Amino acid sequence: MSWVPGAAESEFGLANLPFGAFTPSAGGASRLGVRIGDHVLDVGGVAAALGHPERAALGSSTLNALMGRGRRVWSAVREDLGAWLGDPSFEDRCRPYLFALDAVELRLPFEVADYVDFYSSEYHAANVGRIFRPDTPALPANWHHLPVGYHGRAGTVVLSGTPVVRPFGQRKPPGEGRPSFGPSTELDFEAEVGFVVGVPTTIGDRVGVAGFAEHVFGVFLLNDWSARDLQSWEAVPLGPFLGKSFLTSVSPWVVPLAALEGARLPTPPRTEPVFSYLDDTGHPWGLDLSLEVRLNGDLISRPPFGAMYWSAAQQLAHLTVNGASVRGGDIFASGTVSGPDPQEWGSLLELAWRGERPIGLSDGSVRAFLEDGDTLTVSARAAAKEGTVGLGEVSGTIAPARPS
Amino acid sequence: MSWVPGAAESEFGLANLPFGAFTPSAGGASRLGVRIGDHVLDVGGVAAALGHPERAALGSSTLNALMGRGRRVWSAVREDLGAWLGDPSFEDRCRPYLFALDAVELRLPFEVADYVDFYSSEYHAANVGRIFRPDTPALPANWHHLPVGYHGRAGTVVLSGTPVVRPFGQRKPPGEGRPSFGPSTELDFEAEVGFVVGVPTTIGDRVGVAGFAEHVFGVFLLNDWSARDLQSWEAVPLGPFLGKSFLTSVSPWVVPLAALEGARLPTPPRTEPVFSYLDDTGHPWGLDLSLEVRLNGDLISRPPFGAMYWSAAQQLAHLTVNGASVRGGDIFASGTVSGPDPQEWGSLLELAWRGERPIGLSDGSVRAFLEDGDTLTVSARAAAKEGTVGLGEVSGTIAPARPS
Repeated sequence: MSWVPGAAESEFGLANLPFGAFTPSAGGASRLGVRIGDHVLDVGGVAAALGHPERAALGSSTLNALMGRGRRVWSAVREDLGAWLGDPSFEDRCRPYLFALDAVELRLPFEVADYVDFYSSEYHAANVGRIFRPDTPALPANWHHLPVGYHGRAGTVVLSGTPVVRPFGQRKPPGEGRPSFGPSTELDFEAEVGFVVGVPTTIGDRVGVAGFAEHVFGVFLLNDWSARDLQSWEAVPLGPFLGKSFLTSVSPWVVPLAALEGARLPTPPRTEPVFSYLDDTGHPWGLDLSLEVRLNGDLISRPPFGAMYWSAAQQLAHLTVNGASVRGGDIFASGTVSGPDPQEWGSLLELAWRGERPIGLSDGSVRAFLEDGDTLTVSARAAAKEGTVGLGEVSGTIAPARPS
Repeated sequence: MSWVPGAAESEFGLANLPFGAFTPSAGGASRLGVRIGDHVLDVGGVAAALGHPERAALGSSTLNALMGRGRRVWSAVREDLGAWLGDPSFEDRCRPYLFALDAVELRLPFEVADYVDFYSSEYHAANVGRIFRPDTPALPANWHHLPVGYHGRAGTVVLSGTPVVRPFGQRKPPGEGRPSFGPSTELDFEAEVGFVVGVPTTIGDRVGVAGFAEHVFGVFLLNDWSARDLQSWEAVPLGPFLGKSFLTSVSPWVVPLAALEGARLPTPPRTEPVFSYLDDTGHPWGLDLSLEVRLNGDLISRPPFGAMYWSAAQQLAHLTVNGASVRGGDIFASGTVSGPDPQEWGSLLELAWRGERPIGLSDGSVRAFLEDGDTLTVSARAAAKEGTVGLGEVSGTIAPARPS
């Protein structure tokens, strides 16, 4: 039980303790914080006041330094944070560093190095295949053999709440003879779960599924905003580019892997045997996270993360099996989280089947894709051993395209 | 005429003055240098000694700070460097900061932010289409309408000379029923020209073709090492990933755009009309660079950069037309440079037509793809107004795969 009012009943109690970056004064310098209930503790401030051995990393403006310290330090710091926020004898010393969440400005929690996006929901991949490539098998031939993925744009990864300006671009709708240029007419979201690497590797090293928790610091939510019209025109043969690169939003709170121990699940049974580097027997890193997607407040989907075919540990094993190194601040995301039922699909492309079946909202309007002014929010929680652990939310509001 | 011995006759005379990073003592801290003949001038050292206004940026360990200062500063610094190395009255003050190239250790000249690779040689794209997708048109439908590109892995961009360890990975040769896993058997090079951004933009901004030289600092050579077997198995539908991400090598010397003014060319005539943001009329950024590819010393190709269909200015205009921002240290590359003639193709995939027509080397051996121990070197030069401007070379030697 935390002494912070309201923390015990929240999704951000002592079992969670996610990290973020914030400033108490608008426009001020970023500092690291830990969310507790509806408050944030300035962990750099407390660490300095207490002479904590990790006060340098905790006093940094992003998580990268702490993430680079490795799992033993992460555990020790987590234990100390639990003591500071759980033991009433620390209350007086912590109080000066405790801020109400609604009085601070949140910042991007990490400096992003590389960004890789996977494609690891079988339901999503099959839906997309049926929609975009109706004349071919729903799943590409490689799909059950490896976690398909690609590199996204690290420089346009932004904090939840950043306006999503509708992108301009080229598109050629099926049946039209020539491409046209203008604001995207098929602006979409993708509800995803992201992972951030803390401990780097050297070129040539491989991170096996057993090494996942030595390198990955934590988990957050990610919305891979997508302009489907731009994407389907540009993506052959080198994959998505401008249809994705305009913006990717992430949630402000990075939940440590340790907070999700109780949510771990085996991955679903294999359709095809996997090569040994992808065999996660004994190292289950499926996670039982329940996502919720809201469009202008209406709940439009409940994607189940536990249904993902490839786990984050398998994704990292694949990413590094060719000797590619990882750096602290590398992020990688699951790909759109979609479950087997239509109410569990994680994009409007699927929910409205590329406009064939627009979805209805409570205000009587319908949506095939996102409209200017729409607010799309993805939230998630894990039912862990010691209570519900929230991942918070990633949200964005669509702003009109800027004239070219 | 430079007072540095040998500089006037070299490709690195006063008309060039490319920047790099180096250390005079093995394992020492990186500092910025300018190449002059077969010497390198420690520009941070000279700038400090002379009290130069840009001594902070010039005293940095990478080019990023100087690149961020913008075009006016780049011009002023270039003028001062020309005076220091051209005017004999500076010789005494510069001498202590002048090092023989063979006595220093070179370093990666910039900190890479995002890395984008384009696909802008029509000859290369058509060759690859014929080889990998024989049942479809050689060029994808979008190819003449936009510069096709994708994001690569920034964290594995390394300096020329770094060993190229043969990557492991999955592949499924045509006709085989199931994929296999092992060291790549189709390891290849791609001879490319790279560009580095100095001045950043904000999300939502667009850099038109007219703004190219305000943002891009300079030019270098890049080898996008490619495992064709991994690439062809993984790349549908999201593009290349592990077939490319294991390593990308860059040349040590970044040639300022100003040194290449005399090499500028119009892009070839358009096959299809382009949208206005890609219209480079009046802003020609084709470059008349002659590349040479050597395998174990044998000249195996002479790719002509002037034949590229899309210029770097068009590539940057496309990259940002959706509002994606750029950062200092962003690099983007041309894609494989191939000309119309088979002796001008920029990859072994093309030169040996995926193994159908292996090429012969002077030692009597033949190559379909790169073998362990092979050294592949790409060099380039521009015939500029005031003499030949060299881009130097990017080189790598293949090392055996590491056991899995």
